Amino acid sequence: MSDRVTDLLSTRMDAIVSRLSDYVACQSVSADPAFEPGMESARQFLETRLAEIGLDNVQRLDGGGHPAVYADWLHAPGKPTLIVYGHYDVQPPDPLDEWQTEPFTLTEKDGRLYGRGASDNKGSSTIALESLAGYLEVEGGFPFNLRCLFEGEEEVGAATLPVIFERYRDLLRGDLVLSADGGRNGFWPAINVGCRGVTALEVTLKTSAVRDLHSGRYGGVTRNALHDMTALLASLHDDEGRVSVGGFLPDAALPTEEARRHVAELGLDEDELFASFGGTPHGWPGYSAIERLMLLPTLEINGMWGGYIGPGGKTVIPNAAHAKVTLRLVPGLSPADARKAVVDHLQAHAPEGTTVSVSAESGGAPAYNLGEDSPLVIAADRVLREVTGETPVRVRSGGTSPITATIREKLGIDTLMFGFSLPADGVHAPNESYAIQSIREGIVCWPKMLTELGRIWDAKTN
Amino acid sequence: MSDRVTDLLSTRMDAIVSRLSDYVACQSVSADPAFEPGMESARQFLETRLAEIGLDNVQRLDGGGHPAVYADWLHAPGKPTLIVYGHYDVQPPDPLDEWQTEPFTLTEKDGRLYGRGASDNKGSSTIALESLAGYLEVEGGFPFNLRCLFEGEEEVGAATLPVIFERYRDLLRGDLVLSADGGRNGFWPAINVGCRGVTALEVTLKTSAVRDLHSGRYGGVTRNALHDMTALLASLHDDEGRVSVGGFLPDAALPTEEARRHVAELGLDEDELFASFGGTPHGWPGYSAIERLMLLPTLEINGMWGGYIGPGGKTVIPNAAHAKVTLRLVPGLSPADARKAVVDHLQAHAPEGTTVSVSAESGGAPAYNLGEDSPLVIAADRVLREVTGETPVRVRSGGTSPITATIREKLGIDTLMFGFSLPADGVHAPNESYAIQSIREGIVCWPKMLTELGRIWDAKTN
Repeated sequence: MSDRVTDLLSTRMDAIVSRLSDYVACQSVSADPAFEPGMESARQFLETRLAEIGLDNVQRLDGGGHPAVYADWLHAPGKPTLIVYGHYDVQPPDPLDEWQTEPFTLTEKDGRLYGRGASDNKGSSTIALESLAGYLEVEGGFPFNLRCLFEGEEEVGAATLPVIFERYRDLLRGDLVLSADGGRNGFWPAINVGCRGVTALEVTLKTSAVRDLHSGRYGGVTRNALHDMTALLASLHDDEGRVSVGGFLPDAALPTEEARRHVAELGLDEDELFASFGGTPHGWPGYSAIERLMLLPTLEINGMWGGYIGPGGKTVIPNAAHAKVTLRLVPGLSPADARKAVVDHLQAHAPEGTTVSVSAESGGAPAYNLGEDSPLVIAADRVLREVTGETPVRVRSGGTSPITATIREKLGIDTLMFGFSLPADGVHAPNESYAIQSIREGIVCWPKMLTELGRIWDAKTN
Repeated sequence: MSDRVTDLLSTRMDAIVSRLSDYVACQSVSADPAFEPGMESARQFLETRLAEIGLDNVQRLDGGGHPAVYADWLHAPGKPTLIVYGHYDVQPPDPLDEWQTEPFTLTEKDGRLYGRGASDNKGSSTIALESLAGYLEVEGGFPFNLRCLFEGEEEVGAATLPVIFERYRDLLRGDLVLSADGGRNGFWPAINVGCRGVTALEVTLKTSAVRDLHSGRYGGVTRNALHDMTALLASLHDDEGRVSVGGFLPDAALPTEEARRHVAELGLDEDELFASFGGTPHGWPGYSAIERLMLLPTLEINGMWGGYIGPGGKTVIPNAAHAKVTLRLVPGLSPADARKAVVDHLQAHAPEGTTVSVSAESGGAPAYNLGEDSPLVIAADRVLREVTGETPVRVRSGGTSPITATIREKLGIDTLMFGFSLPADGVHAPNESYAIQSIREGIVCWPKMLTELGRIWDAKTN
């Protein structure tokens, strides 16, 4: 029956891409308040579309930050409830001068659709929305109850999502979550059975000087915040690429032999991986690239600034320096423990005459594991076997969907990431894109997934 | 005779401060093209004022950058020629949110005048301009020929000043230069007999990655430009504060025992120095603060940036990082040798898989020495003995006036820095200010200086 849905959607590719284009045109950058009008237009786009495809109770769920957009279809009394998740916010488009097209104008070139959010997450959300629309149109209803939740803070740590879950607990009652977020990581067919956690810190180092100083008047006699900050941040890693923060890789977080065998089965071609983005291999010694990505925590400086960074020059000795840091977490290393290890290291290594402060925690999420016996994994395994004729491998995402951990904590249920982005999409970077082929594959798999979940649930209740 | 000039100027303090206020209101930030209208208004202010006080041939000298403003008084045939120097450009006002008053609105408070450029160099230039005006009004002429040169690129390295000197060689013929720039460094009475040189580098480190990368997708497997840049920049100093760049302090640049005795005679109170700006002592071990300031070279990171530095967060692995660096130079360490030492260090320490590039040289100036037998030193010694009743010490400025080295190279003559700024002025920082008392002292000393120079020159020619 899902084949008929796919057949229908296949005739509508132009309309689907056109709707994705409208969605990308909403400049929904959650990190920057200047983009609030774009956030609002993305919410309106979703509200219109959810109602259009036949869902009920379209509304906003307000948790005190960017509200989420909700809709449901609850016409299968006595049946379980599936929650479909996506996010309508996107990363900032910076650095703007590296875009070869307008970031918010979806532009097709050589089978790819370029634009901020074209892949993460508007492209994969479009697959979900169109599949639901087609399913309803062809079948007249779903074999379970359905709730849709599109949140607006995924790219900034989903800080108010827990509030939304608590405030709208009844509205968000469900049995499983199917997420349109996440991607294929270069392996296919594959099932995402987990992801690293994440937590963010903003670090400020200040010297005791009451102001920036003239480097002629004071150069050579006193501390320079950038000298101290570079040394402090450099102390977080050793030359080989190991995170040199005590307690950052406790025994409980060491990759197990089983996990290492598992990722080895993925057969990653490291040469191909590095060729795909031009990067040079570097990281924790003694582990392969795929192990470093899936099984080890990281500490990355995402941004750093201090002193005069405008045009020309200014001969100042800065008295403050700043850095944005994120930690990727694995099972056995909680957000709180990881933060404490890093903060302790920074405080211990800050030279005399400087003060280091770290922003309060916000939006941290622990690493996530999805069990092999979950209906989500069973269903995905069947769908991917059928579509590809191969045995799907189990992969863990190096990235983080905070929602999976938050949902398990707040709603007590499991989530499967079922997005279709690819490494070549360049998500979060300039010139992000989405392969039109990904949409074609998505509208085969999503309808089948809905059908399989219905079957598994029916088998359980019969 | 100069006393009569001072008496006259003393009755005009309100008008003098009012004119300084008009001058500060010209937003003449040379580093940022957005401030070009302010640069133009500062030039017009000078042109009007120079003509008003009775100088001739007011004109602009164009070297291809911000033009200089020139005027002269050449009615002493057969006599030597003095060139009075100042600069009309100022540092950028950043960081704006740390100003307690409007940066370009001169604001009096507790005997100080607050505003960007109030001290450096518009305050001290005002002393020079008012002294020339008073001298002409009282005496009807000068005991020598006079040329005034106010340039517009001092704060950005005076890149086109050498072009101006070559292009207007005849117009700038002279015997000595009296500069309104520089300051009193906390010692008084004192004569500036030299200054450190300076040269600037902009350093860019790039990884081999073709774009910024998602830290979830690639975190742990490849190089992060900010990790490598912090380690690279941290390697430029050791923990004790020594510049750890090979060749940066060659034997020829080591402070001599004589020089060390000389600065010891200044009797700097280090506790008082550090208390004045709140800084913590740090620098080349084995040398006092005053030695580090006057006799040793420095390498300062003035600004640094990379990755995402906007509001909120962005989980990127940056593929590029940038830093602005200046080197302060001493006799025995040329701009070219110092740059080569730093560039060689950076290239040698850049990790595999990264590329380090350094901007082309611009506006470097070697360290400067003024001989004890110069008429400028003799005249200043007499003026300061008479005014203060004390023996002036000889000081070297830790900062740099590129013009002194450039003038010696291009015009073959000596320059004395005779500005009146004080450490408490906070030049280059937010809330820059100038003591009204500095103006009062300046309008005593500058007229006497003109008189003494005339006497010394007359004695030589008789």
